[in-house]
Amino acid sequence: MPGNSIGQMFRVTTFGESHGVAIGGVIDGCPPGIELNEAIIQRQLDRRKPGSNRYTTARREADAVRILSGVFEGKTTGTPIGIVIENTDQRSRDYSNIMHTYRPGHADITYDAKYGFRDYRGGGRSSARETAVRVAAGAIAMQVLSQQGIEIRAAMTQMGSIQAQQYDWQAVNDNPFFFPDTQQLDALDALIRELKKAGDSVGAKIQVEAHGVPAGWGEPVFDRLDADLAHSLMSINAVKAVAIGDGFDVVSQRGSEHRDEITPQGFVSNHAGGVLGGISTSQPIVAHIALKPTSSISVPGRSITAQGEACEVVTKGRHDPCVGIRAVPIAEAMMAITLLDHYLRQRGQNAEVSQPWQFS
Amino acid sequence: MPGNSIGQMFRVTTFGESHGVAIGGVIDGCPPGIELNEAIIQRQLDRRKPGSNRYTTARREADAVRILSGVFEGKTTGTPIGIVIENTDQRSRDYSNIMHTYRPGHADITYDAKYGFRDYRGGGRSSARETAVRVAAGAIAMQVLSQQGIEIRAAMTQMGSIQAQQYDWQAVNDNPFFFPDTQQLDALDALIRELKKAGDSVGAKIQVEAHGVPAGWGEPVFDRLDADLAHSLMSINAVKAVAIGDGFDVVSQRGSEHRDEITPQGFVSNHAGGVLGGISTSQPIVAHIALKPTSSISVPGRSITAQGEACEVVTKGRHDPCVGIRAVPIAEAMMAITLLDHYLRQRGQNAEVSQPWQFS
Amino acid sequence: MPGNSIGQMFRVTTFGESHGVAIGGVIDGCPPGIELNEAIIQRQLDRRKPGSNRYTTARREADAVRILSGVFEGKTTGTPIGIVIENTDQRSRDYSNIMHTYRPGHADITYDAKYGFRDYRGGGRSSARETAVRVAAGAIAMQVLSQQGIEIRAAMTQMGSIQAQQYDWQAVNDNPFFFPDTQQLDALDALIRELKKAGDSVGAKIQVEAHGVPAGWGEPVFDRLDADLAHSLMSINAVKAVAIGDGFDVVSQRGSEHRDEITPQGFVSNHAGGVLGGISTSQPIVAHIALKPTSSISVPGRSITAQGEACEVVTKGRHDPCVGIRAVPIAEAMMAITLLDHYLRQRGQNAEVSQPWQFS
Amino acid sequence: MPGNSIGQMFRVTTFGESHGVAIGGVIDGCPPGIELNEAIIQRQLDRRKPGSNRYTTARREADAVRILSGVFEGKTTGTPIGIVIENTDQRSRDYSNIMHTYRPGHADITYDAKYGFRDYRGGGRSSARETAVRVAAGAIAMQVLSQQGIEIRAAMTQMGSIQAQQYDWQAVNDNPFFFPDTQQLDALDALIRELKKAGDSVGAKIQVEAHGVPAGWGEPVFDRLDADLAHSLMSINAVKAVAIGDGFDVVSQRGSEHRDEITPQGFVSNHAGGVLGGISTSQPIVAHIALKPTSSISVPGRSITAQGEACEVVTKGRHDPCVGIRAVPIAEAMMAITLLDHYLRQRGQNAEVSQPWQFS
Repeated sequence: MPGNSIGQMFRVTTFGESHGVAIGGVIDGCPPGIELNEAIIQRQLDRRKPGSNRYTTARREADAVRILSGVFEGKTTGTPIGIVIENTDQRSRDYSNIMHTYRPGHADITYDAKYGFRDYRGGGRSSARETAVRVAAGAIAMQVLSQQGIEIRAAMTQMGSIQAQQYDWQAVNDNPFFFPDTQQLDALDALIRELKKAGDSVGAKIQVEAHGVPAGWGEPVFDRLDADLAHSLMSINAVKAVAIGDGFDVVSQRGSEHRDEITPQGFVSNHAGGVLGGISTSQPIVAHIALKPTSSISVPGRSITAQGEACEVVTKGRHDPCVGIRAVPIAEAMMAITLLDHYLRQRGQNAEVSQPWQFS
Repeated sequence: MPGNSIGQMFRVTTFGESHGVAIGGVIDGCPPGIELNEAIIQRQLDRRKPGSNRYTTARREADAVRILSGVFEGKTTGTPIGIVIENTDQRSRDYSNIMHTYRPGHADITYDAKYGFRDYRGGGRSSARETAVRVAAGAIAMQVLSQQGIEIRAAMTQMGSIQAQQYDWQAVNDNPFFFPDTQQLDALDALIRELKKAGDSVGAKIQVEAHGVPAGWGEPVFDRLDADLAHSLMSINAVKAVAIGDGFDVVSQRGSEHRDEITPQGFVSNHAGGVLGGISTSQPIVAHIALKPTSSISVPGRSITAQGEACEVVTKGRHDPCVGIRAVPIAEAMMAITLLDHYLRQRGQNAEVSQPWQFS
Repeated sequence: MPGNSIGQMFRVTTFGESHGVAIGGVIDGCPPGIELNEAIIQRQLDRRKPGSNRYTTARREADAVRILSGVFEGKTTGTPIGIVIENTDQRSRDYSNIMHTYRPGHADITYDAKYGFRDYRGGGRSSARETAVRVAAGAIAMQVLSQQGIEIRAAMTQMGSIQAQQYDWQAVNDNPFFFPDTQQLDALDALIRELKKAGDSVGAKIQVEAHGVPAGWGEPVFDRLDADLAHSLMSINAVKAVAIGDGFDVVSQRGSEHRDEITPQGFVSNHAGGVLGGISTSQPIVAHIALKPTSSISVPGRSITAQGEACEVVTKGRHDPCVGIRAVPIAEAMMAITLLDHYLRQRGQNAEVSQPWQFS
Repeated sequence: MPGNSIGQMFRVTTFGESHGVAIGGVIDGCPPGIELNEAIIQRQLDRRKPGSNRYTTARREADAVRILSGVFEGKTTGTPIGIVIENTDQRSRDYSNIMHTYRPGHADITYDAKYGFRDYRGGGRSSARETAVRVAAGAIAMQVLSQQGIEIRAAMTQMGSIQAQQYDWQAVNDNPFFFPDTQQLDALDALIRELKKAGDSVGAKIQVEAHGVPAGWGEPVFDRLDADLAHSLMSINAVKAVAIGDGFDVVSQRGSEHRDEITPQGFVSNHAGGVLGGISTSQPIVAHIALKPTSSISVPGRSITAQGEACEVVTKGRHDPCVGIRAVPIAEAMMAITLLDHYLRQRGQNAEVSQPWQFS
């Protein structure tokens, strides 16, 4: 209810501020008997780690996860999994410049409005640092889903005006942009350099997919699979839009064009993005998200102080010119968390049900 | 948990199938002492009523709401408000053609996969008829919000390739398309005629806004105001995308362009759509949704039977060529429900908090 | 969250006041394919119906339930089941005597404190009339549980100082007191007569049991099966205590006496009442509840008006001298609701688990 | 949903096993601006700490709590408070004797039934060690409640057959039994010695009270204040019964005797235990709980192995002869957690309500 948990049957609760002692969380509802250890989680964490390449922030956190409970002799026990990641790189610094001013595009002003005051060191709770815990939870969810033959993958498909023209999913994890079109890596590199020079930033678009999800997951009418995905993906820092399947393109489509026809071998197309009536169809689940440009830039901007007086703000420090890059593993994690939740819900509710038809 | 409820402090639960005895729901958590009667709810219901104009389905339902509880001497008591709308227009008809076949683009196939069988009369639970209860609940939420000076409004801003070029909000409720650009009403009319003739349908885009929301509503980090709006808006039938503020346009924006600068008089722009870090900023809350074209069309399409055999489907009956039109009051309702929920959550959590700054 | 719902996977929400238009509710999460019709529900409702015998209130309600949704061709569809029971016996009467005074032992004063005002006709929302919806929901839960071989039964085991000495479960449903000791029916009858004459009332104790529950249901550590039973049973009007197994008797027991030893054939005793560590053991689940004497009595009592002035209250009207009698089917219903919820939760969480041991 | 969280607006989630790396939790929903530091929490933790006196287990844990987040400059920020308590005293020992056998009265057998296997070191998740996190969370809740003038206190009022005859609340925290009757301390001491010698254990009864709770807290009809207290108190390890006010004594009371009359100065008595219709009355909230005798005793008992074969079990190790003693601060914590949750819920729902009457 206070908003730091997500999921019903598979429930993830996070805590922690960017410059506090540690971040962490509780992953509750993981079925028992699943192989799990710190290395499995660490593998995902390392993908979103700051400082992992020169295109993202230079801040270096070990991001070393500790599993405190819920795992015994290498397997989950069914009890809650407590995890902690210490904040090792909390440089002692002078916050006086942001302490009493509101950085435009940041949550400084809204946290003050909501809570009356805030932890002004870095982004506090609003920092993307919190998402490390989500990635850890997602890694656990993927362990369970992979046993069901489900694979989740994501890629950055656009940065600024540079769009992927080709989708080579093999290439995605081999370049620092998680970009599926290797022809444009030089252009991306040039854009990042230009932005760093200008002290500016740019937005990005991410595509995230799940393959192998059977038909029948999702709870009408409010907790539709797509509605829950919209919730979980929009909860990622900086995300401003979520689309399922053809997304906003459906506005100009005709019904005869949009509907995915069905044959005994399966669906002919996937405009729906794998969800009909809020329930999975067995097509791949496909979602797209838009991430706004990083708000922490060194281009001066007008703002006000906590006393309501005009001031100018320049954000110094180590920041990604494009937060979208690091959001790729986060998007995968959120999709995994939401899918596992719906798998367990479906299993509880309709365990004894079998669908009439099978594709050949 | 089974998915037919939305909201935490203000909680709406719906029930009912399109061709069952009745639809209805429970609106729980409405504060006491709010003026309420059936006429207030009916006013909103009539806006989304089928048959209210010749552009939507010819099915005529009285859609007369009965309040069964929670209101005493014209005011809410704080106890749950039970409402029922009888299904009066359940024509006896022959369903044998859809009973064992899956209409492409419909939830027939996914309901069968999830539940093992389905109520095949009309859309059953997946029918948009269920949204009448949401509109009723939204009308109650608006009664509470209007006391806080909050006004919610929506318009269809695009149908097919016809986009609104002007935004005359006064005109929206005076035309059957809820369209803000009166110059294009003839074009819309022509498109509907063409679609009816072709037995086809088209998608639509809706803009929904809330004015007067103070800064400080929304719960980081998962139950962000925008994430909860994404959930509630994506839960509307046929919605395939949700955008907050500039939405997908942020992908190609620079940080210096996107961030909304702040002056002692207020925000200079509203690219954010009224939400920063998941919390309202006091700017107008602005969201956009995309609705897919109606799946029930008379253009023949390939499909399969419940036994997995190939067949051809032609959907007969009374259907809207554009479901997006009637979704306008539904979008308003969902925004109202989500905002009221967050108002009550904020009031409980941070009742004694006052923000440091005030705009002049 | 506003408190009118119970359960997670099997979720019951009720609405309605004693003298409003109707009472009803939504039963969400019932698995699909379960045989259900109004007669099955009515059978349970008739057991708690006012006026069903001369020992309970003379008010006569038809208590005829209507299923509005969620059932198709005699089976549940997995979608929410909406039910309504009209209030047919709302005698027009003069409430001026209770309108501005607080009846001692009643919720009048607390509802006014919480909501600022109340529906003063009868008990409003605090009336036991609301429990009819629980009994209906419990009847649905029992349909699902009975397929798993689970039987639920309850009896009034004490009224005033009259305790059951023998437990003849066959006799329980053949006498108007749901009493298992037929030797004492005359004494109970005499006590009721005496109370009616004196205008007074008396408390009662109820034992409720579930047989056939397998080991493994219940969620540590907060949502233990016994903790959830305590919640659901204590939520019944007038209940002041809940005991599992030996209850308060454990205070003076030794560990060597209390613990239930185990043999290859099963547990040797059942002091635990079927729950260890919050999880079912496969022993019968046994609970006891205490119900306070009816507060509506004609013995004059001191009280205050809504203005805080002293007054004397005499409650007129038709009231049970012992509310505990009618609570027997309600207790069964609440146990059924809680057990089904935990069955579905267990099925979702640990569907693929099999316990190592089996009793021979 | 998986059961390791409690509360709606004030939500406590715990993790950890008795012999794992650490125990801890997330306290979410604490209002901002509340003074908090580790010393405040430690004070309560020390009261339930094992080894704090010779009447409880000799196991010594530092039980040193670390606050990882949610507190900034000595005040809560409104964001989730992460806490961790390392398990420092995990003696390396031989568990082979309990690894494959089920200790009677323990959760060994039910955990195996639920999860298919278990962490057999100590009690694993079912150990009372988990309650340290509850005490920490309760300490935070008390910080908020004390600002509202609410004081919570508990005492052990019976151990075995030794009942408190006098209630000297000043004395409770000055003796190792939290017993309010100093006349009987010698008898308690003698009983513990006898039990230790016999290798046996005994049950206990605890009374827990809240003073200063205003009228109007609690949510009818399921989340009544007393029903939620029953849930939270029954969720404490070893608790088998919960009573509010007169509890099971109401069974033999008359209505004219039980009901608490009201005068302009307040309630004349408190048979109700401070709750009517599920809502607080402004009387003290009074609850009683029964704790079963410790199951870990050295008296041999019959049991079975995980393979279902007969065996004899003798539990060695360091165990309290009466778990009830240490449950006193746990009971206080659970009452504080539940009350704060209802305070915040009431504040959100009915913030603008004022009750008509005031006691003089």
